[in-house]
Amino acid sequence: MAIPIIWIVALIAGIISIGAAVYFAYLVMKEDRGNDKMIEVSGHIEKGAKHFLWIQYSILSIIVVILFVIILLFLPSDLTHGVVPILARPIDLNWEQALAYILGSAASMFAGWLGLSVGVKANTRAAQGCTVGIKKGFDIAFFGGAVMGLAVTGSALIGVSVLYSIFQNPLVILGFSFGASTIALFMKCGGGIFTKTADVGADLVGKAEFNLPEDDIRNPATIADNVGDNVGDIAGMGSDLFDSYVASIVASMILASFFAVAGAEFEFVLLPIVFSSVGLFASLMGIFLIKWFGSDNPGKSLNLGTYLSTVMFAGLAALFVWFMTMGMNVGDFANQTEFDIAKWRMWKGFIAVVLGLLSGIIIGWTSDYYTRDDKKPTRSIAEAAKEGHAVVILSGFAYGLISVVLPAAGIIAAMALSYLLDGIFGISLAAVGMLSIVATIVSNDAYGPIVDNARAIAEQGGLGDDVIRTADHLDSAGNTAKAITKGFAIGAANLAVVALLFSFAAEAGIVQFEITDGIITKLTSTVDFLNVKVLIGAFIGVVVPALFSALLILSVQKNAAKMVEEIRRQFKENPKILEGTEPADFKSTIDIATKGALRELILPSIISMSAPVLVGIFFGVAALGAFLAGAILSGFVFAIFMSNSGGAWDNAKKWIEDGNLGGKGTEVHKAAITGDTVGDPFKDTSGPSINTLLVVMSLTASIFMGLLLLVNGGDGLLDLGSLMEKINTPSGLGILIGILVGIAAVATGFIFLVKWIRKKK
Amino acid sequence: MAIPIIWIVALIAGIISIGAAVYFAYLVMKEDRGNDKMIEVSGHIEKGAKHFLWIQYSILSIIVVILFVIILLFLPSDLTHGVVPILARPIDLNWEQALAYILGSAASMFAGWLGLSVGVKANTRAAQGCTVGIKKGFDIAFFGGAVMGLAVTGSALIGVSVLYSIFQNPLVILGFSFGASTIALFMKCGGGIFTKTADVGADLVGKAEFNLPEDDIRNPATIADNVGDNVGDIAGMGSDLFDSYVASIVASMILASFFAVAGAEFEFVLLPIVFSSVGLFASLMGIFLIKWFGSDNPGKSLNLGTYLSTVMFAGLAALFVWFMTMGMNVGDFANQTEFDIAKWRMWKGFIAVVLGLLSGIIIGWTSDYYTRDDKKPTRSIAEAAKEGHAVVILSGFAYGLISVVLPAAGIIAAMALSYLLDGIFGISLAAVGMLSIVATIVSNDAYGPIVDNARAIAEQGGLGDDVIRTADHLDSAGNTAKAITKGFAIGAANLAVVALLFSFAAEAGIVQFEITDGIITKLTSTVDFLNVKVLIGAFIGVVVPALFSALLILSVQKNAAKMVEEIRRQFKENPKILEGTEPADFKSTIDIATKGALRELILPSIISMSAPVLVGIFFGVAALGAFLAGAILSGFVFAIFMSNSGGAWDNAKKWIEDGNLGGKGTEVHKAAITGDTVGDPFKDTSGPSINTLLVVMSLTASIFMGLLLLVNGGDGLLDLGSLMEKINTPSGLGILIGILVGIAAVATGFIFLVKWIRKKK
Repeated sequence: MAIPIIWIVALIAGIISIGAAVYFAYLVMKEDRGNDKMIEVSGHIEKGAKHFLWIQYSILSIIVVILFVIILLFLPSDLTHGVVPILARPIDLNWEQALAYILGSAASMFAGWLGLSVGVKANTRAAQGCTVGIKKGFDIAFFGGAVMGLAVTGSALIGVSVLYSIFQNPLVILGFSFGASTIALFMKCGGGIFTKTADVGADLVGKAEFNLPEDDIRNPATIADNVGDNVGDIAGMGSDLFDSYVASIVASMILASFFAVAGAEFEFVLLPIVFSSVGLFASLMGIFLIKWFGSDNPGKSLNLGTYLSTVMFAGLAALFVWFMTMGMNVGDFANQTEFDIAKWRMWKGFIAVVLGLLSGIIIGWTSDYYTRDDKKPTRSIAEAAKEGHAVVILSGFAYGLISVVLPAAGIIAAMALSYLLDGIFGISLAAVGMLSIVATIVSNDAYGPIVDNARAIAEQGGLGDDVIRTADHLDSAGNTAKAITKGFAIGAANLAVVALLFSFAAEAGIVQFEITDGIITKLTSTVDFLNVKVLIGAFIGVVVPALFSALLILSVQKNAAKMVEEIRRQFKENPKILEGTEPADFKSTIDIATKGALRELILPSIISMSAPVLVGIFFGVAALGAFLAGAILSGFVFAIFMSNSGGAWDNAKKWIEDGNLGGKGTEVHKAAITGDTVGDPFKDTSGPSINTLLVVMSLTASIFMGLLLLVNGGDGLLDLGSLMEKINTPSGLGILIGILVGIAAVATGFIFLVKWIRKKK
Repeated sequence: MAIPIIWIVALIAGIISIGAAVYFAYLVMKEDRGNDKMIEVSGHIEKGAKHFLWIQYSILSIIVVILFVIILLFLPSDLTHGVVPILARPIDLNWEQALAYILGSAASMFAGWLGLSVGVKANTRAAQGCTVGIKKGFDIAFFGGAVMGLAVTGSALIGVSVLYSIFQNPLVILGFSFGASTIALFMKCGGGIFTKTADVGADLVGKAEFNLPEDDIRNPATIADNVGDNVGDIAGMGSDLFDSYVASIVASMILASFFAVAGAEFEFVLLPIVFSSVGLFASLMGIFLIKWFGSDNPGKSLNLGTYLSTVMFAGLAALFVWFMTMGMNVGDFANQTEFDIAKWRMWKGFIAVVLGLLSGIIIGWTSDYYTRDDKKPTRSIAEAAKEGHAVVILSGFAYGLISVVLPAAGIIAAMALSYLLDGIFGISLAAVGMLSIVATIVSNDAYGPIVDNARAIAEQGGLGDDVIRTADHLDSAGNTAKAITKGFAIGAANLAVVALLFSFAAEAGIVQFEITDGIITKLTSTVDFLNVKVLIGAFIGVVVPALFSALLILSVQKNAAKMVEEIRRQFKENPKILEGTEPADFKSTIDIATKGALRELILPSIISMSAPVLVGIFFGVAALGAFLAGAILSGFVFAIFMSNSGGAWDNAKKWIEDGNLGGKGTEVHKAAITGDTVGDPFKDTSGPSINTLLVVMSLTASIFMGLLLLVNGGDGLLDLGSLMEKINTPSGLGILIGILVGIAAVATGFIFLVKWIRKKK
């Protein structure tokens, strides 16, 4: 049978991918590091980034161990016990998921470490490369970024395929996915807070108060800013997409185990892994083709890579599906019809993945449209800057909200079409398809901070205007690529969590379906929107992303204020810094950003893990399904809106800085800077972090399901139906009113107590 | 039987209410109008407001007639035909709903006209009253506002009770509600655009460029600004609450017709009307009590009125329920048990209305907390202004999002508790309860623009600093009251649309229930969240409020830009305006605001009416239910967030203007002004308009249901289930792919065509 070969292909793909990552790392490392000043600056950045990574990983290790123990000891799961009351079951450990959890977090940490290590070494080499020519600079930066892309996909694919080969159960891989998710939550949100703390702090004092140019080495926060780009966009974005990637694969595998044609269970469950492997090959080929055929236009090269990967993915995927259907044997099936259905559905699955990938690209385009400085929205925002600070904000805010419509249509079309093809399994395959070329996406994204840093190093290393201009070209291509990949990442994460939602529902038994002739003819669930408990779940779900993004914004604001104080302190205590005769204290600014990011992560991460568990415990699993759905919907709106508003403000400002509408230093420019500063945490902290939030919440729901099903049979403590019967007597009602009055009395008493204590003080 | 008496009580309450409104109007009119300058300014405001009203009503009349014809001719409804294919049924008119529709719009227009006419006459009298003392000024403004409150509730209650007495069918009243809703959409959004066009325009040029103080008569937009306060906060807010008020009553009546105990159908259907009448009496008594016991502290007086009304509502409602249960006869019921159940449920309904009202007040408090300048959020926002324009925006944005959490908890608690009491009928009663004292709420709200205008007139009429300070006191009480009523209005509208959603579902037959012992023991619907069609409906629903608010913001921005140009033009062409020797041209600025508001209303109103119809036609009524639910959830988040962010920015700015953090003219103050300007359309245009959007969409769904149920039996044109079966063959799939490729080809061709045409140009 050809199937084991297929499985081994996935493992091989992963190993080749890691091998290629190491090869690219080697290519980058052997390049010239430039002059001493450059080496020094790059060294500062590297040290800062590793410092951040080291502290994050140390704290994360503790958290991972705690969660490992919780999964091991306290989570009875279908996997190990079925649903047995905790006290009734023998002491038996959920060691499979717990082990997978550790591996998942380790794999994500490894990928992040490898990508970041090379990224921070590529910047000075890319800067030096620019002295040779734009092609040289581009190659170094692009290969540096590719290390992250390949490390992410490679380690994810190896982890998933090895675990599946050992346990043959997708539920184990759920643990792996949850591990990746824990890391993503910290790396993405933490990185996002770090980068914007430094950026906003550097801008507010350095640029606004002391008129220092961008990337001026006298600005004490400039190194932290460069570090931030790396930890936010390389480590953060990488771990985020690692997370979505694995989540889409595991959701699809779980759904396959419900919806496979009898006789081809193995093929169906492997299908997502196969498509992902194919995507990895396609991405790899795309990356090599760029190396050989790359033009002098860096923007075109990046996009060419994406399109080439897409086309090759479609071709290769067709080949693999054909290969798999050839390997199937009619003897394994009930009859010829079933056999035909199985083959037919695999082909429909192929169409679903291709459609998923195409819609991902279309969503990326819409982000590009709404943030490009030669299109109407960004131009209008720039024009609005003429009317002052407030109007530029209103305009960017409004266009950001409007920009949600097209991506929503894209997601809806992808969902509807893939559902038509193969039901909810089809939707999960569309998500797999969208994420199949994730290696390319992460590579393009990681390219961004490398060239951004390279530009800074070129300036600080005194390489002259021509080289800086070359680096600028590379940088602006990075920004365009980033706009596309960001929209792409949000769309893909969204479809992946929709798939996770369905797999959660299938696992929890809150969805029932009938299959006739290989298609779902009836699908019903208890996630009934007009059930008040479910509606309440959805209500809570809708609020969480809003709260989460607000907390992250406040975190950035709080930390940036500390950063501002520190910069002012340095300038005041040592005037030689401003004169440029003594170096600023970079360590202290990096320290503020690192510690601030960690401290501010506490509340959001508690919310994201406890909210689904609490909703499940109090309102039951059906309400939890609605909670997730509500969070997905509002999360999508906030993620797209914030990312695109932020991107458009950024580019509007840059367009003005290019000399339009009066150019730098004018009132218009100042207003545009306000827009950009508001947009910074929108686009680099809150907006993209919502992806991670959604994946974490969905996985938490799935992982904790065993526990939730124990509570009142999955109906939750506050089962409105049975409570209603209980209070349907005067005494029952009396008790309810008594409880309410009691709560009100306690609350009132508490408020008065607080007021009294405050007065005493 | 006592029931007809009960019904007549409602009619009497309505008539007394209109009578009281006329009496208060008389009280206001007989007051002194002040000096000539004041009469002149007030005259300008009155003329402008009436001009706006006249143009709005003219256009609205045409729209109302068109919708009347549509309802009359094209909407087959359960009411008249049951579901019969259009071609198969005899030509028969849906004249009942159509007639009710006309009456509903007429009643809302009448209330708006009466309230606005008195409001614009009360301002100068209140200003003159301030020369006598704060109590005198307060009384005039408060009675002027009470006219609107009483006109709204009175005409709504008369309309509902008369229509019900004639047709004995709540579905007819749906037409009345839809009529009120059409008016509300135009008055609220139009008023919101008008007021902020004028306000932002006046601020941007007058204050920022020419350093004119607030309300300076030399500013050509100042009269338009004052007009805007009236049309936005008196006519707009009044029509908005008229809308929610009637919607809550009709939703509850429809649900009562499904859930009444056999033998007490009439009593149950009347219950919402009874509670509303009781609320009106309670409000009236509250208003009179303020007249007699009002203190010198205007803020306390306003709040006292609200609390007195609440307490009296609870007492009176208990009395009326007791009266109704006394009037019931055991002989009308199947047996003694049924009789007991009916009485028991009426008492539980009483608890539900009281809980609804209490939670409304609590939600109002949370808005107050998040926008008061002596509480942490607004203080933090003010402190953030020290860091500059961008940080004050980020801070206000974040606190606005956080402020959603508590009101959401309030709504969830109200929903859960009232559901426990009497199922979804209980929820609808909670909505009725929340809106029962709407006369008080609208009165407090309409007080705001009167005292705001009074302050302006006192300044322009040269009444001296003491009087202006008195007027300032009145004004700041109005702002506090407004914060509470705004939160209250959003909460109430939200609960009302939840009730409408359930009544829609019951009517559409997408919800099934079993009733045992008088309580719903089982409630299921086909609004199944995991059904992809339903999920798509919810997705579209979530996006609509975001799009809607973005369009309104852009409208304000666009119109404000025109206003700015006009003001600059006037100053340039006639320098005497700035010298104060010649009056500015107020007519042209009012004209810009009026026409701009109307033009910009087109797209949002088309979206709000067509979106539910299109979702229903394409995806069916279950998806439409989810669409409404999605819109309610995201609408709630956006409405609360925008209102509270805006309110907090406004108060942060005022707090700084009071001399804190350096006071007026500093950089901190300028940053705070940016916050306030961003907040203006948030809190007075987009945020509160979302209420109206939600009610309009819910009612559109209900009114058009007859038509939607004709399309594929209510399953919609794009029935994914049956489409899936159709494409489950190679030829079916081929056709699908063909269609997709065709669409893609046409779209691509179109894009190239557009590009080509642009190039040619």
